[in-house]
Amino acid sequence: MADAPPDKDDKTPRTARGERTRRALLSAAAQEFGEKGFHEGSISGITRRAGCALGSFYTYFASKDDIFRALVNDMSGQVRDYVSPRIAAARDGVEAERIGLLSFLEFARAHKEIYRIIDEAEFVDQAAYRAHYENTAARMTVRLSKAAERGEIAPDVEEVHAWAIMGMNVFLGLRYGVWDDSRPAEEIARIANTLIERGIGRR
Amino acid sequence: MADAPPDKDDKTPRTARGERTRRALLSAAAQEFGEKGFHEGSISGITRRAGCALGSFYTYFASKDDIFRALVNDMSGQVRDYVSPRIAAARDGVEAERIGLLSFLEFARAHKEIYRIIDEAEFVDQAAYRAHYENTAARMTVRLSKAAERGEIAPDVEEVHAWAIMGMNVFLGLRYGVWDDSRPAEEIARIANTLIERGIGRR
Repeated sequence: MADAPPDKDDKTPRTARGERTRRALLSAAAQEFGEKGFHEGSISGITRRAGCALGSFYTYFASKDDIFRALVNDMSGQVRDYVSPRIAAARDGVEAERIGLLSFLEFARAHKEIYRIIDEAEFVDQAAYRAHYENTAARMTVRLSKAAERGEIAPDVEEVHAWAIMGMNVFLGLRYGVWDDSRPAEEIARIANTLIERGIGRR
Repeated sequence: MADAPPDKDDKTPRTARGERTRRALLSAAAQEFGEKGFHEGSISGITRRAGCALGSFYTYFASKDDIFRALVNDMSGQVRDYVSPRIAAARDGVEAERIGLLSFLEFARAHKEIYRIIDEAEFVDQAAYRAHYENTAARMTVRLSKAAERGEIAPDVEEVHAWAIMGMNVFLGLRYGVWDDSRPAEEIARIANTLIERGIGRR
């Protein structure tokens, strides 16, 4: 689609001000859907929270489904953009996974609505739901493979390990990020990382 | 509540025939909600699938919410009843986790609607959703602690390990059980179990 002519239905903002309005609408949608869920949430609730007119909404989004899909993709990108640069600073492949979980826990604690939004996509927009997890797992598989090539982790890592580690992170984020954040994130990340590094088999 | 007098709203079946009808309604509800989701699913759709009258429905359930809650608890119990006896036959604590994942993958492949139902509880009945995962994690924590006491796994296992392993299993079940079951369940369980046993740190 990169070479396609501009779509007359294209709602991409063309100015910095437009981009700010679109972002304000996405933030408002995160609050609205995070609190009320997709079915109870409404476009008027979103524009009220964003402090903008209904007409502005339709400048950037075609419908409630459309902004929900955009929100899922946006939150998926926000997690990636928060976690990826932190992981890039890791010493090796095992530490990368500790930092990956630690920064994901930090993100989940600061954006507790993320679970409700991404999980509800399973029912509202299955393609966006699958894309979020498949893209995350694909990035992790590449990261693990490169660490294996550098000799930092076992040579036989593959997609199964990525899905396993992603699943760990998602459930630890739910339990120790969203439901109860009383234990230090560093402690949770360290314990899980020991499992990844050495397993729990008898030493 | 164990000592409370019988509740006149108690809808527990008193006969074997009543128990069969209740079970038929739960199976029909699993199909109905699994295909249509909670919002689109209906009581009349459930009774049609179960081949029973609307009056029978209200003999056993008070509402659509009520049968949904009962279904989540029932599916949670079905997984436990499928997995637990298989785990009990394991040689040690590490093998118990391999068999736990293997039997969960088998269950998910045979009951692909389980994810849609339990995941939708996050929106329809948050208490039932939390109970499912908290009960599962509590059982795993006890299992890991006993294996540690027997010296089969690391002595410092705790709740965090249970949530980590449960998260692995849930995501591996989604990816290799529900979305794509082309790889043998034994292979997935073996790879994940190596991660649990020895980790993926450089050997």
